[in-house]
Amino acid sequence: MRTVDLNSDLGEGLGSWGMGDDDALLDIVTSANVACGYHAGDPSIMRRVSEHATRIGVAIGAHVAYRDLAGFGRRFIDVDAATLRDEVTYQIAALAGIARLAGGTVSYVKPHGGLYNAIVTHESQAAAVVAAVKDFDPGLTLMGLPGSAVLRLAQEAGLPVAHEAFADRAYTPEGHLVSRKEPGAVLHDPEEIGRRCIAMATGEPIQDINGDPLTLQPDSICVHGDTPGAVAIARSLRSALEGAGVGLSPFTRVG
Amino acid sequence: MRTVDLNSDLGEGLGSWGMGDDDALLDIVTSANVACGYHAGDPSIMRRVSEHATRIGVAIGAHVAYRDLAGFGRRFIDVDAATLRDEVTYQIAALAGIARLAGGTVSYVKPHGGLYNAIVTHESQAAAVVAAVKDFDPGLTLMGLPGSAVLRLAQEAGLPVAHEAFADRAYTPEGHLVSRKEPGAVLHDPEEIGRRCIAMATGEPIQDINGDPLTLQPDSICVHGDTPGAVAIARSLRSALEGAGVGLSPFTRVG
Amino acid sequence: MRTVDLNSDLGEGLGSWGMGDDDALLDIVTSANVACGYHAGDPSIMRRVSEHATRIGVAIGAHVAYRDLAGFGRRFIDVDAATLRDEVTYQIAALAGIARLAGGTVSYVKPHGGLYNAIVTHESQAAAVVAAVKDFDPGLTLMGLPGSAVLRLAQEAGLPVAHEAFADRAYTPEGHLVSRKEPGAVLHDPEEIGRRCIAMATGEPIQDINGDPLTLQPDSICVHGDTPGAVAIARSLRSALEGAGVGLSPFTRVG
Amino acid sequence: MRTVDLNSDLGEGLGSWGMGDDDALLDIVTSANVACGYHAGDPSIMRRVSEHATRIGVAIGAHVAYRDLAGFGRRFIDVDAATLRDEVTYQIAALAGIARLAGGTVSYVKPHGGLYNAIVTHESQAAAVVAAVKDFDPGLTLMGLPGSAVLRLAQEAGLPVAHEAFADRAYTPEGHLVSRKEPGAVLHDPEEIGRRCIAMATGEPIQDINGDPLTLQPDSICVHGDTPGAVAIARSLRSALEGAGVGLSPFTRVG
Repeated sequence: MRTVDLNSDLGEGLGSWGMGDDDALLDIVTSANVACGYHAGDPSIMRRVSEHATRIGVAIGAHVAYRDLAGFGRRFIDVDAATLRDEVTYQIAALAGIARLAGGTVSYVKPHGGLYNAIVTHESQAAAVVAAVKDFDPGLTLMGLPGSAVLRLAQEAGLPVAHEAFADRAYTPEGHLVSRKEPGAVLHDPEEIGRRCIAMATGEPIQDINGDPLTLQPDSICVHGDTPGAVAIARSLRSALEGAGVGLSPFTRVG
Repeated sequence: MRTVDLNSDLGEGLGSWGMGDDDALLDIVTSANVACGYHAGDPSIMRRVSEHATRIGVAIGAHVAYRDLAGFGRRFIDVDAATLRDEVTYQIAALAGIARLAGGTVSYVKPHGGLYNAIVTHESQAAAVVAAVKDFDPGLTLMGLPGSAVLRLAQEAGLPVAHEAFADRAYTPEGHLVSRKEPGAVLHDPEEIGRRCIAMATGEPIQDINGDPLTLQPDSICVHGDTPGAVAIARSLRSALEGAGVGLSPFTRVG
Repeated sequence: MRTVDLNSDLGEGLGSWGMGDDDALLDIVTSANVACGYHAGDPSIMRRVSEHATRIGVAIGAHVAYRDLAGFGRRFIDVDAATLRDEVTYQIAALAGIARLAGGTVSYVKPHGGLYNAIVTHESQAAAVVAAVKDFDPGLTLMGLPGSAVLRLAQEAGLPVAHEAFADRAYTPEGHLVSRKEPGAVLHDPEEIGRRCIAMATGEPIQDINGDPLTLQPDSICVHGDTPGAVAIARSLRSALEGAGVGLSPFTRVG
Repeated sequence: MRTVDLNSDLGEGLGSWGMGDDDALLDIVTSANVACGYHAGDPSIMRRVSEHATRIGVAIGAHVAYRDLAGFGRRFIDVDAATLRDEVTYQIAALAGIARLAGGTVSYVKPHGGLYNAIVTHESQAAAVVAAVKDFDPGLTLMGLPGSAVLRLAQEAGLPVAHEAFADRAYTPEGHLVSRKEPGAVLHDPEEIGRRCIAMATGEPIQDINGDPLTLQPDSICVHGDTPGAVAIARSLRSALEGAGVGLSPFTRVG
């Protein structure tokens, strides 16, 4: 049976502020990207999500980010590589300690938002992330965009990597994401999203933005959950995958 | 030979801001209370201090604090116990990860500033700190004020504790610190400070604020280093102790 | 015709985080307590709320707070009076500038959360708030709890004051709020809330926690809007007041 | 008599952290760029510097920055223009209110660090700064680098502008700053710095990085004060200017 991993950004509240429905998403996904306090998240949220994920067998990833609560980590910050490396270490370490108390373990690292996008091409920031992950634990998987600088450097450094696809995004013929500024960049139809993800999970081609076939073979598919509508789409995607005989399981070890 | 531990607050800069002379103090003390980012400190400073301390055999302690950069962790914050527990866990975990990369280890926890003072009497916050330390690693020593709620609860929980004295503070007949608002609360004469610390280290009485004998038997003596004058006093104190045949060594394991 | 003012806390998001439904509440209340960035709010939110409030004739108040985003300003912080005074000035000044660009004006100041509660009795913090408001503009009204230290000091300083009541809270025979830890402290029945507010607005007694009559004559009634249910209650309260012939208008000048 | 303005970055501490010697610099410069809390500074520091500057006739400028305390505002942040505009408004408004209480007034705006550098070429961020300044008060002078996008847009918008030169930086033949990464980019010899500034102030050419003549006619010369050595250089520069018969006075109105 083919299996696939669904990942989602979780624990992105802060104090009194919530973001999305962590509990609902944890029943859908198999890997939880847990915010570590730099773009979102706080220690109690980290603990709660880690406990819940561990209880139900969802893998825990460190969702590391620029230090930017006001911007939710979405903006590029031209932070120097040495500072970034240490900031990534700090975030992984903090979550690893909390996850351990929750009975779980951090098994992968996924950079967030502005950092995720920057290290598709930004060599020195990509290298800083790779160094932080490898120094902390060379058994951690680094999740990122196929073809990105960060995954290339991670592989060169001997780190396990996970190639990520996005359930609700259109792709160029080269397999890159269509910019959100372009029409058709984001998909909204649950059925279409379901069909595409089944194709991705079973090695079949999807249609790129031009309608031509494009084969993606992701290790993990990202689903969003920051709105009630997004949670519903994620839930229907899971059903569609299961209905098509695609199993769901974390791409990394759990617990 | 009698030995004593000297501890000091280190790594209390933030980004471009410095605080004290970490390198000078690391040559004087045997235990480094390393700020963890909540009242001061950032990941690069934590790494630098951890590396330096490890290199020269100085013990590393997590200097955990309220989440209050603007107030340097000095003000009491009426944070609820569950939040505080998780915040303390987060700080210890972050430093523990960074210290490990530096080749060292966190061997004790010393609460900072407003939190240190609060948990002399604040039972629920004291219990939160004890729970965080014990859950993270029951081998960690908790350093605090003799007679405080936090040390009592730590002992009840089976944690190792360290009783702290202050090199430059006057004491009441009961062995409490004279409030800084009282005249004579802070000592400035290096020779007097040296004599008192030699007495503490060798089990001899010092004079309390009334001039009567008071015997303190601290596991560690705190020296300050946030001004050039303070560093000079700390250096002369170390010389005085060594001149009196008192050895200096960490009260906890190192590395 | 009797009139009353309804006030609510608005603009309490931060960047990507939302809190309540500002637009819905602005159609209900007559005075908007606008967060100034210390417990919540950011410059763009402040601008948006100020523009909307000004457009529809809702008064703008500076909802000043402790510097505590992580705690949403809800925890007591033992900040010294001089620092607090300057922090309150900073917040009022920032909002006043933004409100002016929006075509409006700040006409009152309402302390938030932990600060609001502290200055019911904390004399030096209360005096700091009064000094900040008076120095900035002695024409600003200070809103607070009847019988509080801050309102007493404000009146002694010659500041206009507004006495606030809470639509959904039970009162002791002395006219104090019943602690949220007590049963019955918070009311949930929209009809009962409506009846009580009509009584308050028309000078009639309400029932205190013991069922005995208690006459409150508030200048403003606080309604909450941080949940969908709260918005519905606020909306039904407004209808009830209008149905009873009670006019709604800001207690301060607008624009 | 020729006169020139000396400006310096002031009030760049935060809580317990200091930066430079504000009091020493205020006796040297004629314009104070006061940090507004986004890269450095806090309300009490803003008040103290504003009071001191006003007392001795030094002009007050709003030293607006990216929201980045951890990075001291030095890193480029790809913040969107609308957010940046509102953040600049917030900072100017806060300082304007505090300066007014100090008996003074904000007469100019100087972007700081990463923002200063970005808006030499970043059109949309430059436009955001110009819009914020103009909307707040079209009489405010905008200080920046000659030839920058921000000064061009400011002039097009009808804002007064001030062209800034740097006392201790080498210049290219085109009048741009030599990158700090190049040898010779920063000057350290107080006598040479003094000679160059006298030339700038009197309309004479200085030598560019190649030794060829280059005429700069700055409205203000920036001196640094973040180290004891920098303060000494600034002091000797002031003496040199006065010895050469160059008067020192703010380029904007004071008080």
